[in-house]
Amino acid sequence: MASESGKLWGGRFVGAVDPIMEKFNASIAYDRHLWEVDVQGSKAYSRGLEKAGLLTKAEMDQILHGLDKVAEEWAQGTFKLNSNDEDIHTANERRLKELIGATAGKLHTGRSRNDQVVTDLRLWMRQTCSTLSGLLWELIRTMVDRAEAERDVLFPGYTHLQRAQPIRWSHWILSHAVALTRDSERLLEVRKRINVLPLGSMDATSERDFVAEFLFWASLCMTHLSRMAEDLILYCTKEFSFVQLSDAYSTGSSLMPQKKNPDSLELIRSKAGRVFGRCAGLLMTLKGLPSTYNKDLQEDKEAVFEVSDTMSAVLQVATGVISTLQIHQENMGQALSPDMLATDLAYYLVRKGMPFRQAHEASGKAVFMAETKGVALNQLSLQELQTISPLFSGDVICVWDYGHSVEQYGALGGTARSSVDWQIRQVRALLQAQQA
Amino acid sequence: MASESGKLWGGRFVGAVDPIMEKFNASIAYDRHLWEVDVQGSKAYSRGLEKAGLLTKAEMDQILHGLDKVAEEWAQGTFKLNSNDEDIHTANERRLKELIGATAGKLHTGRSRNDQVVTDLRLWMRQTCSTLSGLLWELIRTMVDRAEAERDVLFPGYTHLQRAQPIRWSHWILSHAVALTRDSERLLEVRKRINVLPLGSMDATSERDFVAEFLFWASLCMTHLSRMAEDLILYCTKEFSFVQLSDAYSTGSSLMPQKKNPDSLELIRSKAGRVFGRCAGLLMTLKGLPSTYNKDLQEDKEAVFEVSDTMSAVLQVATGVISTLQIHQENMGQALSPDMLATDLAYYLVRKGMPFRQAHEASGKAVFMAETKGVALNQLSLQELQTISPLFSGDVICVWDYGHSVEQYGALGGTARSSVDWQIRQVRALLQAQQA
Amino acid sequence: MASESGKLWGGRFVGAVDPIMEKFNASIAYDRHLWEVDVQGSKAYSRGLEKAGLLTKAEMDQILHGLDKVAEEWAQGTFKLNSNDEDIHTANERRLKELIGATAGKLHTGRSRNDQVVTDLRLWMRQTCSTLSGLLWELIRTMVDRAEAERDVLFPGYTHLQRAQPIRWSHWILSHAVALTRDSERLLEVRKRINVLPLGSMDATSERDFVAEFLFWASLCMTHLSRMAEDLILYCTKEFSFVQLSDAYSTGSSLMPQKKNPDSLELIRSKAGRVFGRCAGLLMTLKGLPSTYNKDLQEDKEAVFEVSDTMSAVLQVATGVISTLQIHQENMGQALSPDMLATDLAYYLVRKGMPFRQAHEASGKAVFMAETKGVALNQLSLQELQTISPLFSGDVICVWDYGHSVEQYGALGGTARSSVDWQIRQVRALLQAQQA
Amino acid sequence: MASESGKLWGGRFVGAVDPIMEKFNASIAYDRHLWEVDVQGSKAYSRGLEKAGLLTKAEMDQILHGLDKVAEEWAQGTFKLNSNDEDIHTANERRLKELIGATAGKLHTGRSRNDQVVTDLRLWMRQTCSTLSGLLWELIRTMVDRAEAERDVLFPGYTHLQRAQPIRWSHWILSHAVALTRDSERLLEVRKRINVLPLGSMDATSERDFVAEFLFWASLCMTHLSRMAEDLILYCTKEFSFVQLSDAYSTGSSLMPQKKNPDSLELIRSKAGRVFGRCAGLLMTLKGLPSTYNKDLQEDKEAVFEVSDTMSAVLQVATGVISTLQIHQENMGQALSPDMLATDLAYYLVRKGMPFRQAHEASGKAVFMAETKGVALNQLSLQELQTISPLFSGDVICVWDYGHSVEQYGALGGTARSSVDWQIRQVRALLQAQQA
Repeated sequence: MASESGKLWGGRFVGAVDPIMEKFNASIAYDRHLWEVDVQGSKAYSRGLEKAGLLTKAEMDQILHGLDKVAEEWAQGTFKLNSNDEDIHTANERRLKELIGATAGKLHTGRSRNDQVVTDLRLWMRQTCSTLSGLLWELIRTMVDRAEAERDVLFPGYTHLQRAQPIRWSHWILSHAVALTRDSERLLEVRKRINVLPLGSMDATSERDFVAEFLFWASLCMTHLSRMAEDLILYCTKEFSFVQLSDAYSTGSSLMPQKKNPDSLELIRSKAGRVFGRCAGLLMTLKGLPSTYNKDLQEDKEAVFEVSDTMSAVLQVATGVISTLQIHQENMGQALSPDMLATDLAYYLVRKGMPFRQAHEASGKAVFMAETKGVALNQLSLQELQTISPLFSGDVICVWDYGHSVEQYGALGGTARSSVDWQIRQVRALLQAQQA
Repeated sequence: MASESGKLWGGRFVGAVDPIMEKFNASIAYDRHLWEVDVQGSKAYSRGLEKAGLLTKAEMDQILHGLDKVAEEWAQGTFKLNSNDEDIHTANERRLKELIGATAGKLHTGRSRNDQVVTDLRLWMRQTCSTLSGLLWELIRTMVDRAEAERDVLFPGYTHLQRAQPIRWSHWILSHAVALTRDSERLLEVRKRINVLPLGSMDATSERDFVAEFLFWASLCMTHLSRMAEDLILYCTKEFSFVQLSDAYSTGSSLMPQKKNPDSLELIRSKAGRVFGRCAGLLMTLKGLPSTYNKDLQEDKEAVFEVSDTMSAVLQVATGVISTLQIHQENMGQALSPDMLATDLAYYLVRKGMPFRQAHEASGKAVFMAETKGVALNQLSLQELQTISPLFSGDVICVWDYGHSVEQYGALGGTARSSVDWQIRQVRALLQAQQA
Repeated sequence: MASESGKLWGGRFVGAVDPIMEKFNASIAYDRHLWEVDVQGSKAYSRGLEKAGLLTKAEMDQILHGLDKVAEEWAQGTFKLNSNDEDIHTANERRLKELIGATAGKLHTGRSRNDQVVTDLRLWMRQTCSTLSGLLWELIRTMVDRAEAERDVLFPGYTHLQRAQPIRWSHWILSHAVALTRDSERLLEVRKRINVLPLGSMDATSERDFVAEFLFWASLCMTHLSRMAEDLILYCTKEFSFVQLSDAYSTGSSLMPQKKNPDSLELIRSKAGRVFGRCAGLLMTLKGLPSTYNKDLQEDKEAVFEVSDTMSAVLQVATGVISTLQIHQENMGQALSPDMLATDLAYYLVRKGMPFRQAHEASGKAVFMAETKGVALNQLSLQELQTISPLFSGDVICVWDYGHSVEQYGALGGTARSSVDWQIRQVRALLQAQQA
Repeated sequence: MASESGKLWGGRFVGAVDPIMEKFNASIAYDRHLWEVDVQGSKAYSRGLEKAGLLTKAEMDQILHGLDKVAEEWAQGTFKLNSNDEDIHTANERRLKELIGATAGKLHTGRSRNDQVVTDLRLWMRQTCSTLSGLLWELIRTMVDRAEAERDVLFPGYTHLQRAQPIRWSHWILSHAVALTRDSERLLEVRKRINVLPLGSMDATSERDFVAEFLFWASLCMTHLSRMAEDLILYCTKEFSFVQLSDAYSTGSSLMPQKKNPDSLELIRSKAGRVFGRCAGLLMTLKGLPSTYNKDLQEDKEAVFEVSDTMSAVLQVATGVISTLQIHQENMGQALSPDMLATDLAYYLVRKGMPFRQAHEASGKAVFMAETKGVALNQLSLQELQTISPLFSGDVICVWDYGHSVEQYGALGGTARSSVDWQIRQVRALLQAQQA
């Protein structure tokens, strides 16, 4: 008989117990991360049972005391796992019974294992969200501090990786910081949905929306960080030479001291893939599952633990990178050139009354004229410019100042100092609201 | 010279223009969806220019009037695309100029193409979110109506696809409806972030968080619908025979009339893959991009359009399925059996004072006794039960009633009628808040 | 100065060394899996250096001996890692130098670290592919053994999860086994590309095609196993009751002994998500990377190790499940019904000379007649059938035999015994070729 | 009754037919791509039926003639779809019947619709693979031509985007070409598995391995092209200035003529995401599906059509880019500097007998000395070098020649001219084998 010999048809030997199956099935190797919240959850639950009259005060006290003992053993590293402890909940329940005897059995009145698993995970993730939020804001704060201190450094803004217009370096920093504030906003929303008590309903034990949302939150945050990392990797090439990583965040070579490999940034960039892979994996696992609990859902925890660890490391490393980076202000300035002011030249004409599309054309003519004459755009004489439009006058000279150029854009999100200051204040206000 | 002959090294012939590149580059084939919001955006922008003193009132009126004409042509299907109209913005701008002349050129003062693209997409998606929200709530309302009307139908609740305990059919419906209310909540949050004016900052033209969030929202919503579809596909097998799809949502066979293929549900289940694929694709495209606008971002629109269409169809088909489904109440009832009440038997003993784990064991002994004697669990005599525990008495007979069983679970999310009614009221309240 | 104080702008304190960065950067925690192939690779390389005249015979012997010592320490668990051993290559090189002194330094002539990393991974994966291939064939063999032994068991074939036509149970087994033979074919092709010596070219150190291919191979294999698991999960529901898992591969409940949860199958199904997530993650990491080595590539190894472990466990558990499963032949037979023979009835008429579409219609009429009269299809009298077509005669009675039905399909892939036997022989021939 | 009124519970109105469901269900909008292979498949099938004696010669001729008519109508654009033609197979069958009458009904003897669908798709994909293979080799050939013609152009090789050692520009080209030859090898293997006749077995109608493999093939090929695009995007920045795209593959700006946006390359890079998204979507759709045909499988075709179109465009655009690109040889040369020869300096000492690790240290000292003295590495005098090692002699001067440097690496995959020539011959041999 199959159930006795455990073997009917070829295949490897299988007794009553298949050790590979046991290992495959067990989650204790990773869900031991939950020991603390499992004890916390059980303590809260026993208080609930006492209120509902299902435990006496004395029984509750006995249980609470026993659970504290269990927690103490975990904290001190003295908790001993048995070979039958397939998950953290079984392990803690088994130990509680050893410590306080039969009363332990009352703790599970009206609580299903599937509810307990979800509750523990929610408690753990609630804490993790707070931790990650703190790290995220530490990074944002570092970026804002830096943006404020280096407010007057100019360098090229790029589109399509081609130099476009002069911008402030702090404008670049803030563009990334602002993206991260959206991550913070989203993390709060995710946390709100994590922080919901599963109601014992069919949906509660089987939905993993909060896990999927968390993994996606991390994936989107990582695309932001991967993009910032990409910019910085470029900026620290020999060709750009705008920034230099501190030694703590790069690896050098005794042979080629000019070569500082930006390992930290490459690792940040690469983790976007890993984190998203976990999100993709979970969604595929969820797709098409029938209602309520199925063992497939056990896949949730390793994904959450790994992604949490990764996010924690990435945020801290990014903070370290930003806080220790050196900028080469001179190189940044030298990368600016008058042709990047052609748009400003058009706006000069708009301010003199010319419609924009026409001004745009006139400026194009000036660029062409300069190129033909083999001079920089700002070296065209006033007379030459006036052959293009009589609206040009002596004050055109102001256009050729990069500082003046960035000061023109004073609208929200612009490059003017006032605009940058406003952005800094906005982010600081969010930071303060966060800490309150 | 390469730029003249267009060909240096082998390869296919390439003149000054490569028609494949032109098609590859052009987005007009799909971004024409945006014609209406593009006109709306330009109208709003021209009003802004007038307020800022950059347009006179007369110029603004001329532009507004011209834009209305453009919109009229699109609405009537008379708008003619030129071969140079590579995107909707170029097409509308070109047409406006034909209609009103040089004043058209003033509309673009201080507005970059990249800003305009993002603004249009945001306007379009804001409208789409509202539409999808309406369809989502139509589905939820249909489910709640059905749950209310069929409140007293019982059938098995499953875990691991194994029969577990009796539940209400409406409890099943509500478990899926509740998942969809979370989708509604998330959609509001996504819409909130869509409904933000891009500020002209570096981040504004290059961030596609709102697109990624929308695609993920749809992916998660689809995993819910795929799971509901999976349940219903099972329930309409011959083996379960709990429900029957209406002809409008299945395909039959003249040869095998007993065979009704649940095509509608299979398609819903399958779309979870497609929608998630779009989300995965966009995130991969975003990963590692340098700051600000890169042409890679052009991938956003087709994903959004396709996913919007899919979600619209799926939500409407799901509503049709649920509203026309027939249930086989008798089969549902016959699928219940006394062994599904073993947990209730344990709770009977808990109510008599026995600790839960001990009661659980006692109930297990009863199950074993019934199995040994070859009788159903509810056919054990009182005397027989009392050999297991003296706490059993005549009132144990109440345990064997399925209706009584579901009534025991009156907590939030429970199967009692009051609990189900409470859930219905909760969802209806959300619905009302939604419509307000 | 940044490089001295390690801290310029806010942020957490960062000295010359950031311990989080060090942990983030180090791969020793997982690449120690490679210790054996790293030693093997170095031994082969030192032999190559000797041949090329870059090492003397004595130096080579010294190195080989030292490397054997290193291997011995790993094998016996006595190898001691230093805090500076950031990866397995550094660790082994450091230890070799301790053991044999300066000669160790000659081992690295002309070998870049990036080459060595790739070579080690290829060696490791080559071995893993062989192991997985063996496990895959063990599963296939078990399936074929079972298919052969239970060749005459009939049960319903399904499309759209609706009962369609009678088939052999062995036909179902073989349909899954055949899918796995394609996995075997693909694994050989992947292994062929793994088993290539990196040539020191730019492509060799930076391409991870072989990793991506392996992860995709595993993903596709897992979709096959997830589909087989899905079928079996259904077949062991109460409603289908076709099969019963052995206790070793399910979890029961003392309370509800009728409930055997198919945990093993649910875990197999779920791993399809996890494995694919790793594949997705790697491809996203690779996308858009510049040429040659970037640290991003370090993500490859954990993905490979995790997926290899998962595949190994899944294949063994699946073998255990299949080899110990019990089938309920009686239930399988009872799930067949005459209406599943309507297609056969049409073919009966085709054999009598009627065009297929017309025969199809005639059979449909018979089904309708039976339904109208409230009898099973096979209970219509010959007279009744002849009102539909005069081609019906006494031999129509053969149609109503399920065994006869499956015997009709003798083509490749058909349900006839000869066809099934042929399939079995084909798979056994592949198995034999594999072992040769 | 639900099936009559079509509406039981709230929801939108649904009659006997739901137009949204019909559109949701129908595939004719995209599977009309298959018209030609559907006719071809039916022609082959009718010949098979004649051989098997199931059609007379006259009937076969009638069918073949009718099918040719159907094909002619499609080819000439005169085929008229009916509103009931939900897929291409129904449409062609309906039209054939109109053209030749009842004999048309014999064509479907023993052929299931699900078999026909798979066969058509396989035929279509077989042709597509050949087309894509041709385009892929056209690209490879263009690259090899270019590599050969520009064999003597040197520029920096990078790791971690940091300048490392001098290499040949053709070496860079070949590194990408070699990656594409692996794509060609894989495509052949995929085509081999596409080109298999579905056997009518359960597995044949439900497996979509060949679709998944094709989508993954495309995904991996796209990661190669995305990486080449990334390199070229960098090389055409102002900062690198190594190459310049032809106008046909970039967009300029009348305002900033120095700005040529590499739109073609950015689009290539971005498509890696889109293509992979389709692969991810299909695998998620397949995961956990029960055996044999389920309507979910209908998702396969749009993915295949879209990915085929994308690959065709990408390969042709990439060929155009490579064949018209201009290189700035002078800038490439100026990017080389003596410090990139430090490794060569170490090898100089190795050739003089010093162990590699020691030579590596000695070279590092030279670099440090040069840096301290503020001179380039190659400006250290022989005396200065000899303070580091007495092995330095007058011939050290040869080290400072970049051409000499690349010539040192003559092994497979090396940078020596002979090695590059060998690579070119290898790829050309593959090309020739391909065309044979």
